[in-house]
Amino acid sequence: MNPKHILSVLQFTKNDVMRFIERATRFRQDRTTQLVQYPEKTLVTAFYEPSTRTSCSFQAAAYKLGCKVISITDKISSSQKGETLEDTIKTLQYYGDAIVLRHPEKGAAERASAVSNIPIINAGDGNGEHPTQALLDIFTIYTELQKRNIDLYDTGRQPITVTFTGDLKNSRTIHSLIYLLSLFPDMCFVYISPPTLELPPEIIQKMNDLQIQQQTYSSIYDSIYNTDILYVTRIQKERFATEREYFAITLSHNYKNFCVTPELLRLAKPSALVMHPLPRSSELLPEIDDDPRAVYFKQVENGVYMRMAILEDIFRQ
Amino acid sequence: MNPKHILSVLQFTKNDVMRFIERATRFRQDRTTQLVQYPEKTLVTAFYEPSTRTSCSFQAAAYKLGCKVISITDKISSSQKGETLEDTIKTLQYYGDAIVLRHPEKGAAERASAVSNIPIINAGDGNGEHPTQALLDIFTIYTELQKRNIDLYDTGRQPITVTFTGDLKNSRTIHSLIYLLSLFPDMCFVYISPPTLELPPEIIQKMNDLQIQQQTYSSIYDSIYNTDILYVTRIQKERFATEREYFAITLSHNYKNFCVTPELLRLAKPSALVMHPLPRSSELLPEIDDDPRAVYFKQVENGVYMRMAILEDIFRQ
Amino acid sequence: MNPKHILSVLQFTKNDVMRFIERATRFRQDRTTQLVQYPEKTLVTAFYEPSTRTSCSFQAAAYKLGCKVISITDKISSSQKGETLEDTIKTLQYYGDAIVLRHPEKGAAERASAVSNIPIINAGDGNGEHPTQALLDIFTIYTELQKRNIDLYDTGRQPITVTFTGDLKNSRTIHSLIYLLSLFPDMCFVYISPPTLELPPEIIQKMNDLQIQQQTYSSIYDSIYNTDILYVTRIQKERFATEREYFAITLSHNYKNFCVTPELLRLAKPSALVMHPLPRSSELLPEIDDDPRAVYFKQVENGVYMRMAILEDIFRQ
Repeated sequence: MNPKHILSVLQFTKNDVMRFIERATRFRQDRTTQLVQYPEKTLVTAFYEPSTRTSCSFQAAAYKLGCKVISITDKISSSQKGETLEDTIKTLQYYGDAIVLRHPEKGAAERASAVSNIPIINAGDGNGEHPTQALLDIFTIYTELQKRNIDLYDTGRQPITVTFTGDLKNSRTIHSLIYLLSLFPDMCFVYISPPTLELPPEIIQKMNDLQIQQQTYSSIYDSIYNTDILYVTRIQKERFATEREYFAITLSHNYKNFCVTPELLRLAKPSALVMHPLPRSSELLPEIDDDPRAVYFKQVENGVYMRMAILEDIFRQ
Repeated sequence: MNPKHILSVLQFTKNDVMRFIERATRFRQDRTTQLVQYPEKTLVTAFYEPSTRTSCSFQAAAYKLGCKVISITDKISSSQKGETLEDTIKTLQYYGDAIVLRHPEKGAAERASAVSNIPIINAGDGNGEHPTQALLDIFTIYTELQKRNIDLYDTGRQPITVTFTGDLKNSRTIHSLIYLLSLFPDMCFVYISPPTLELPPEIIQKMNDLQIQQQTYSSIYDSIYNTDILYVTRIQKERFATEREYFAITLSHNYKNFCVTPELLRLAKPSALVMHPLPRSSELLPEIDDDPRAVYFKQVENGVYMRMAILEDIFRQ
Repeated sequence: MNPKHILSVLQFTKNDVMRFIERATRFRQDRTTQLVQYPEKTLVTAFYEPSTRTSCSFQAAAYKLGCKVISITDKISSSQKGETLEDTIKTLQYYGDAIVLRHPEKGAAERASAVSNIPIINAGDGNGEHPTQALLDIFTIYTELQKRNIDLYDTGRQPITVTFTGDLKNSRTIHSLIYLLSLFPDMCFVYISPPTLELPPEIIQKMNDLQIQQQTYSSIYDSIYNTDILYVTRIQKERFATEREYFAITLSHNYKNFCVTPELLRLAKPSALVMHPLPRSSELLPEIDDDPRAVYFKQVENGVYMRMAILEDIFRQ
């Protein structure tokens, strides 16, 4: 039997997503009692890029399921001696029962899955995908919309406007979330980014094929009135070849078009959600953290429960 | 209810300290049987400066209490992407039940506590404080004095002379220990340091206000005859702006005034204690490690039991 | 009682090795049921050089035995502040029940054992030894020869030709394995290396004293026909003073004499074993990974079971 890899959101149906959401909801409710226990399972986390949230979130989730965790980073591993990703994976598979992989190259998780006898979980592959982030994002959206009496599964033909801002080109989080949201009805997507950081045309094309309504604006101020979900991302300094290119964007007078401030929020719907995968930079001011519409730290919290659901799905095979 | 942070020794009464000492003593006695178990608790250690002792000591203590541990360092975390301490803490609070924080900036632990829903334990904030080190130091002092038939709690008006040497300006360990010892009766403090590394005047002023006897000497040889406890610290290279300033001290002919050698120990009381928070440099020669007065590795051992006492105090809430 | 250090293969008798092999075999058979459990034990891994396999393998083995693990690396420890190895070990001994040490200096594990109250396990000391790798290698040899109806313990006067290629000078793995294999009967050793990377003469002398047949060739093609076990190693870039010296070997037209290719394997015995401690570089092509004679990933798998056997031997004292 092939191992149950999690490489891309494209592998999920709407029902898969709902199943994950239901399971994560159970874990959140039963915070104190642990529903299931996998003391004989070991999770390996292999991170070739810095991370606080994703690696610790998986570790916390594994601990709550009673599992052990082995963590390696490129700083301490044999990749320092030139070992290929394939050889590392073929080695790590003997040390645990699933591998969480973050890697700077697009397609790395798929390459890893081709040689691994145990499940690979893609925790970010360059500017490719980040499926578990998308799952925790949609879990947060589902939960928060529910509080506003909206059922994401069936909105009753009520359109949901999701505005994506920031680095739409390189944000693997946004790429994964767009695909995942497209499984649900009545979505309208709005894209707002600096000219060089626009959403890849193949994603726009794919959404077009699915007859999803899409719009592009040059400023967040053009869309804020109608936005139900404002998904903000950071201009990622580490994705630019030179600092100069980065500052050309973040020091330009247009940069405010991609920034969330208390002033902007005064124009937003009272029911809106402000989301961000974190870490943030100056595009999302801490001044709004206490606004009830700001749910980005709820994303962090929900991440643990969603990853429990994901790991359980893998381990109970 | 507010979480039970441990930020500064100033928050402790004499009775608090005694309670920690008693609990740590119990843990040391019952080495094999574990008194309490917190398998559902996870400790997060977040170290933004190198550490062997403090981070591993907390990890060992957590394991002995049956807890899980998640460790992050600045090398592998999103602080690499410019994330603020506040955002990191607001994230980590969802992954565990307490956060042990070491940070190069004074006041960092307090800043962290302002945004955290779970207890913050200050494991060193720049040249600020290091309260858990002070607690394990006083635990060691208490225990070792007891072997010499002296009760630290009530010395019977017998004065205890504590000589502090080395980098009194930047040693957060000394700052915290001075405050903690000032809770106990009949203390005399002696300070010996290079001219640029003197104890901050506000601490001297505070001890003055408490009517604690204080003296300053230029050489350890002036104080060794009367010293009951010799607390030695390293000149911390990493606290100087340039190597030149560091070597101006450690290569000067006065440097021996701050160094412990077998020759010096021949002048010390037979009942004296030689302590050091470690790591050491050339100020404390390995030649004296086997002298019964050298208790710095007992500090290391006691550190595990004191940190068990601290964690238990936090987790049993 | 002295702690049970594992510093060198020289400390083992043939019966010791057989005992480890038998125990590791049991662990491999009983994969799902854990024979023994040491939940109160903590393993400390201290790695002063990069490693994936050895550190993770010990961690996985410890987890399978129910133990806890504390890991330190030089990047995050007080060795950054100039702490000596001795002081680090005298500290770490209070945090766990055994210390796995990898260090760039030959003799480091022995130095550590001189000051430690708990067992030190040498996981590689410079170009010295790597005894646990040699044990897992011989476990793999024993098991794979068994499948070929050869009993390593008593070959019935059938000679076993082991060809070692690559960096024979610096490969601590090879040094340890040669000593360990010399305990068994009917060994013939063949050495093939670039001129500057020959096996240290004291090892050749020692094997001579044991009347073991030894031969030196300049190319792997001279020996492949008779080889039962081909043990390949990497030219270790990190052991050269300059890149130039490294490339003088790996870019030379003679480099193919130390490389394993599908073409070479066509000349090898059908029953031969191809082994490698990994990580590999260009001396062992991934094209041969699926050849049944390639057992280097079995070495990885067996490493976990052998390390379980080693840890159990230490912990059950």
